[in-house]
Amino acid sequence: MEQESLKSLLEKRSEILWKDCIPHISIDCVVFGFHESSLKVLLVRLKDQELWSLPGGYMGKDEEIKIAANRILNERTGVRDIYLQQFKVFADLNRSEDFFEGYPDNLWHKQRFISVGFYALVNYTDVVPVADEFSGDSEWIDIDNLPAMMMDHRSIFDKALLTLRRQLNYKPIGNKLLPEEFTMPELQKLYEIILGKKLNRGNFYRKMIGYDILDKQEESRKGGAHKAPNLYKFNIEKYTAALQNGFKEGW
Amino acid sequence: MEQESLKSLLEKRSEILWKDCIPHISIDCVVFGFHESSLKVLLVRLKDQELWSLPGGYMGKDEEIKIAANRILNERTGVRDIYLQQFKVFADLNRSEDFFEGYPDNLWHKQRFISVGFYALVNYTDVVPVADEFSGDSEWIDIDNLPAMMMDHRSIFDKALLTLRRQLNYKPIGNKLLPEEFTMPELQKLYEIILGKKLNRGNFYRKMIGYDILDKQEESRKGGAHKAPNLYKFNIEKYTAALQNGFKEGW
Repeated sequence: MEQESLKSLLEKRSEILWKDCIPHISIDCVVFGFHESSLKVLLVRLKDQELWSLPGGYMGKDEEIKIAANRILNERTGVRDIYLQQFKVFADLNRSEDFFEGYPDNLWHKQRFISVGFYALVNYTDVVPVADEFSGDSEWIDIDNLPAMMMDHRSIFDKALLTLRRQLNYKPIGNKLLPEEFTMPELQKLYEIILGKKLNRGNFYRKMIGYDILDKQEESRKGGAHKAPNLYKFNIEKYTAALQNGFKEGW
Repeated sequence: MEQESLKSLLEKRSEILWKDCIPHISIDCVVFGFHESSLKVLLVRLKDQELWSLPGGYMGKDEEIKIAANRILNERTGVRDIYLQQFKVFADLNRSEDFFEGYPDNLWHKQRFISVGFYALVNYTDVVPVADEFSGDSEWIDIDNLPAMMMDHRSIFDKALLTLRRQLNYKPIGNKLLPEEFTMPELQKLYEIILGKKLNRGNFYRKMIGYDILDKQEESRKGGAHKAPNLYKFNIEKYTAALQNGFKEGW
């Protein structure tokens, strides 16, 4: 897509957006995907453009905000039914105005936007991004190897990652990301990947047992090792209660 | 103030707001005040109106959002220079539209508003609310004895309290709320008041020492008791680092 045709596409789209959407408010989605030993994020970019962006868009005049966030994610990436959580509003002056310098002042995209950030963590093998003609590419990209991103999207991503890391201090994580039965080292690995650092094995074990959300299974894992590792399952009742009320071990 | 004069006041104000402010976006502030053994929240109400509300308002077209939040708090309560933090966006359909039923459709206040919630916790003796003619009353009210509140302000308050409680799991609290030197039971009392529940003394001590933000003082408190209690100070360097990066004891 050449610069000129991108411009006319934006201008055409602008008219519709003024009619259908709430001005000044946008939504950006940070979807983290976990698989084995890596953490990725779902990014999009317009065809032939250099900069990547978070999947984002606008709220319909009569649309609930969570429904808008899911619709936007679906439209930009093909991904459906993800439980997205709000984490912060991004409202710096000139975050969008400067980016669209050279475009007409009445272009929808050139308004001052206050963007509501949503995030989610999913098992990325469950979620296959789909490119469409308008969105261009839509891909899972390793968080250790992020490309240049448009506007303030890199700082929106950074803040989402910080929020995800903080969440580990008061909410359980891992259900649907790990197989139904897992070992303590497998669970530890998940935490290490999210935190981006190694954890002490003994401390991890004690803390996790203290959270009281695991059921130790009678059978340990069969395999070649001298000592078969213990297997655990999440106790879904306790896990769900901790999701809502925080950990027993917390304050 | 009678209903009719409130209406004409709102209509006059509406014209100015359409000119100066960003439509569809509002700000609501939940300011918690701690003093000795109680936790209070700063509420306002229009003169002679029954319902109380959170101090709230709108963002200027070229105003940074944090500056807007502080200006609004100052205008409604006389309170200045409070470090407010964003915690959530409230965007339900008809949260404001229904409340202003009977008013003209072009009334500023009757738009669909997406409200950005900010919260803070201060020492409430440092902060004296001032009533002005427009705002009417502005008062510290005990959180255990809240009056009926307008629109969805009660649920904004509830969510702010939950956020404050969660914050205890990853950030220190207490500096400027307690005297410079304090005992462990005094610090525990602060946590108990915020959490609204009793804590076990031994667990509290162990957990707090584990956070590694306290310096034990050489002198213990003089007084009548058989055994003078130990005094602590926050180690400001470690406290500040923990504010930014979370507790050592965290993940």
